[in-house]
This record gives sequence, structure tokens and C-alpha cells, in this order.
Amino acid sequence: MTQTLTCKDVIYAFSKDHAPVKHVEPGTTIEIETYDCFENQVQSAETKIAGIDWDRINPATGPIFVNGAQPGDVLKVAIDKLEIRSQGVMATGPELGVMGHRLDELVSKIIPIEDGFALFNDKVKVPLNPMIGVIGVAPEDEPVSCGTPGAHGGNMDTKLITEGATLYFPVFTEGALFALGDFHAAMGDGEIGVSGIEVPGKTTVTLDIVKGTSLRHPVLVNEEGIAFIVSAATLDEAVKTAVEEAIDFLLPHTDMTLAELTMLMSAAGDTQISQVVDPLMTARFFVPKYILDAYDVKPFA
Amino acid sequence: MTQTLTCKDVIYAFSKDHAPVKHVEPGTTIEIETYDCFENQVQSAETKIAGIDWDRINPATGPIFVNGAQPGDVLKVAIDKLEIRSQGVMATGPELGVMGHRLDELVSKIIPIEDGFALFNDKVKVPLNPMIGVIGVAPEDEPVSCGTPGAHGGNMDTKLITEGATLYFPVFTEGALFALGDFHAAMGDGEIGVSGIEVPGKTTVTLDIVKGTSLRHPVLVNEEGIAFIVSAATLDEAVKTAVEEAIDFLLPHTDMTLAELTMLMSAAGDTQISQVVDPLMTARFFVPKYILDAYDVKPFA
Repeated sequence: MTQTLTCKDVIYAFSKDHAPVKHVEPGTTIEIETYDCFENQVQSAETKIAGIDWDRINPATGPIFVNGAQPGDVLKVAIDKLEIRSQGVMATGPELGVMGHRLDELVSKIIPIEDGFALFNDKVKVPLNPMIGVIGVAPEDEPVSCGTPGAHGGNMDTKLITEGATLYFPVFTEGALFALGDFHAAMGDGEIGVSGIEVPGKTTVTLDIVKGTSLRHPVLVNEEGIAFIVSAATLDEAVKTAVEEAIDFLLPHTDMTLAELTMLMSAAGDTQISQVVDPLMTARFFVPKYILDAYDVKPFA
Repeated sequence: MTQTLTCKDVIYAFSKDHAPVKHVEPGTTIEIETYDCFENQVQSAETKIAGIDWDRINPATGPIFVNGAQPGDVLKVAIDKLEIRSQGVMATGPELGVMGHRLDELVSKIIPIEDGFALFNDKVKVPLNPMIGVIGVAPEDEPVSCGTPGAHGGNMDTKLITEGATLYFPVFTEGALFALGDFHAAMGDGEIGVSGIEVPGKTTVTLDIVKGTSLRHPVLVNEEGIAFIVSAATLDEAVKTAVEEAIDFLLPHTDMTLAELTMLMSAAGDTQISQVVDPLMTARFFVPKYILDAYDVKPFA
């Protein structure tokens, strides 16, 4: 029977000091329920978002202790299934997001979800791309708010984190202490207004440990290829580090020189933006699958 | 008969002081031949790239004076056709691109092009995405090297600049003084090694003037939507300005408040990277066509 975790167990920061709410064996499949990023406090257009409890923001369900995971290992998280509820909410306001300097009031908006679309208003239907905003493990050092991304994952707000994708995280503490939350029914790269279409939901993930290899930043593998995800103070820094992570990962698998691989990545790899508002910036470097296949690279297999 | 411009007429900088090599009426379709970014100096694996004439880099064919174009107008450039030759070349080296700090020699590589692929080596075939790297008008102030992007266009190295796309540029000087060059058979977003698969070619463009509107940065329209392209000292700055350009462009066409439009763009618009090496950074904000259609926005029509 699939194990489950309900959203009565949430954290607001990733921390190695948190007591796990569940222990699982490597290879376990588990169903996890999540609140939306406002902990479901905004249920109707009448809710004054400025008046909600701002200590209950970005809850992540967990943490889960994966038996046998040790610092220096890699935690493998396969997103087997991702389900979202039928009502989303967005918000933006002063000092939030890219346009915050021109907004004078915190506002929210209820958005019904129907037949594969988010009904933004009476004119615009946004196609859904359901994804997980917050996902990660306990960080190496101090606790990190679930609103902030980092090498441990966290609030990466990356569109690729969706059903069918597999994530790999560095493990910094015994058991990894995995948690997730903050689903979006739809989000654009950048998440420029500081929210996606925030929505509660349920996901099924399979947690496993990869021994004998390590990571500095999260990596994502999907049917199209592999993404090296890096969060940093600036986009420029995040992008450069992501490129270097990709090249250092691939180089030993090929017979290319560093210069040749750099040229190949210049021709065929893509620098992409995940988010620019969280408050660190998250970027990724994406390498298409045909390049992995050409060198028979099976990441973390 | 379609007019033509051969690559005997090239510039190495965009400048309002350049004498035009051709005058055309608005609405003129013209065929333009281009060198590759090394002015075709690297023809075989035996060429020592360090020994080529580095004063002949990034040539753009032109400039073309569009009769009637005045400062404050918009130049419309429809890319009707884009043809590339069958041999490309790439290069990278010390202090070039994202990996330049770890490279100790300037190297180049000849890449045959065949049946829709660039044959990078005996293992990897890169699917082509032919595009124009350098395209623009004379800038407002000092001349700008064809290796650098800016509000005038120039070396934007943007993957979307391909057959079927239409570009719009601010006009800064009488006649606009349009030029283009630096085709790529394939390039990844970021162009992380400082070159795409550089290739000579020929393009057919239709040049026109849009009166009664103005622009601060280039805009691109294609079948999928509209991109606001901004170059700046940092990616962070380029991204933020591109988002604001998009929102300021769209807002008057909608019945939304600024906060509502910001939320819609957060859910459905994408911040994207064009290049990170030229030496300014170029980013774009992409708004999908279904949003334009919902508000019956016909850009520059």
C-alpha cells in the first residue's frame, strides 16, 4: 500500500534540526498532500490578503527521513504523479516581484481551474502546466525559509518540476529530510509577479538514494534532457554556475576536450531562467537528451 | 525584381555616420548576402584561428537607408527567408564565454551541415535552428561595434530571429541605416562559448516604416507570440527592463489594472535568455499569442 503524508505536517523552513514526521526505506513511493503557498487562507475574492497570517506562508509537507541517506549521497525524487485542486489564487503587490516598485496595494485574485485551463478572467484562459514550486532537503548550514531557494532545493519555482520529472538533490544531513509544497497550476519562467497560480494538491513521489556520487546543486532529468539548477544572488552568477555544473558533469562521460564540449554546449545547450523573485535568482542550464544518448550517459544510473 | 546587396558592403560597427550603400523605399523586399562572423577567414581545420585578421570580425552587410524613416519611428523588418551555407565554424578560448577562465588556447572547429543537422563530431548531430545574430539600425549616440548588442539591436544573438519572424527597431537616425550579418546554423540560448555554429548565408527581408509609435528596445513577433528584447550590463537588469517593456506595451490594450496584468504575466509570460557573452547580456520577455488574441492586440499594425 502506498504510504501517505497529509498536510497537517508542514514546515516553513528547511532545517537539519527538524524532527522527521515519517521515516521511509529507499525505494518507497509516498503520496503527499500539500497546501497552497498561502496555506489555503485565501478561499474567496472577499478575503483581504493583507490580513492573512503571514507566518503561515510557503508551507512544505514533511520532512521525511529516508533511511540510510548520508551526507554526500544524492537523494533521487521521481515525481510519479501530480494532482492539483480546481481553484487557484494569485497575488502581487508593493516590493514584490519585478513590478513591485509600481504597485501600491497588495492584491489577490481567485482563479478557477477547468478542463486544462486556468480561467484568469472573462477573456483569458491560461493553459495549465502543473508544477511543484518548493521541493528539497535540509540544507548544510542554517535553516532556510521555504520561500528561498538554494543548493538544497527549496523555493526553486522551476517549470520543469512536474509529473514525469526526476530530481536529484545533494544530501547534507542524515536522512536527507525531504519536503515539498507550493504547487502551481501554471507559472511562467521568471514568476515575475512573485506568485504562480497557487493551488493545493497531492503528489506521488518515489524516494531513493544514489550512493557513490555527489552533487553541489539540484539536477533534474526529464524526457527531453537534463537541467542543472542553480540559485544565486544574481541571475548572471546563477547562469554561469549552472553552465559550469553541466560541463563538469558531462566532461568525464565524453571523449571531448573542455573546449570542444564548451562549443557543443554553446551550439546546443540552453541557459534558462526559473525565477527572479524568491529573493535569490534561480537559473538552469538544459542539455538535450540526444547529446546524453550520443555518449550513452545515463545520469545517476 | 528583388533588390540585392552582396557582402562586399560590410560594416564592423553600427553608426549614424556611415554612408548608406543602398537607399530603398518603405515596403521594399531585398536579398542580403552575409559573411560568417569571421568574415569567412576560417575555411578549414588547418586555419590557425589566432592568426586571422581580428579587425575583420562580425561584419554586417549594409547599411541600408530606408527612405522616409525618421528618428522616433519604428523600422519593421520581416525575415521572409533565411538560407545558410553547408559549412559552419565555431570557436572558443581564454577569456571568451562562460568557460573562458578554464581554457588556455583559442580553438576553432569546422562543422559540416547536412540534411537539417550540424555534424558536430562522429557522435553528435545538432538539429539546425538557423538564425541571425547581428541585426539592427544605427544607434542614437556613439558607434557600437557589431559584436555588441543594444537598444539599436546589433549582436543580440537571439534564437527567435529566424525565418518567419518580424522585428521592430527604434529608429534613431534618418533612414534608420539597417544592416545584418552573423548567421548561425544552430545556437543555444546563452551562446555560452561565445560562438554559435557560425555560417555565411543569404536572407530576404522586407523593410518598412511604422509611424505614430515608438520603441525603446527591439521587439520581435512570430507565430507563437511577441518578445521584448533588452540588452544591459547584467542579466538581472535586462530581464527586469524586458518585463517592464512588455507590461507597458500591453497595458493600454487591455482592461486590466497593472496588478492584474502583472499577475497574468507571472502565470503565462516567460523570461528568457538570449546571450550572456557579447559582452552586454541580452534577455527577452515572451508573451504568448493567445494573450494578444484575447485582447485583439495586433502589434504595430
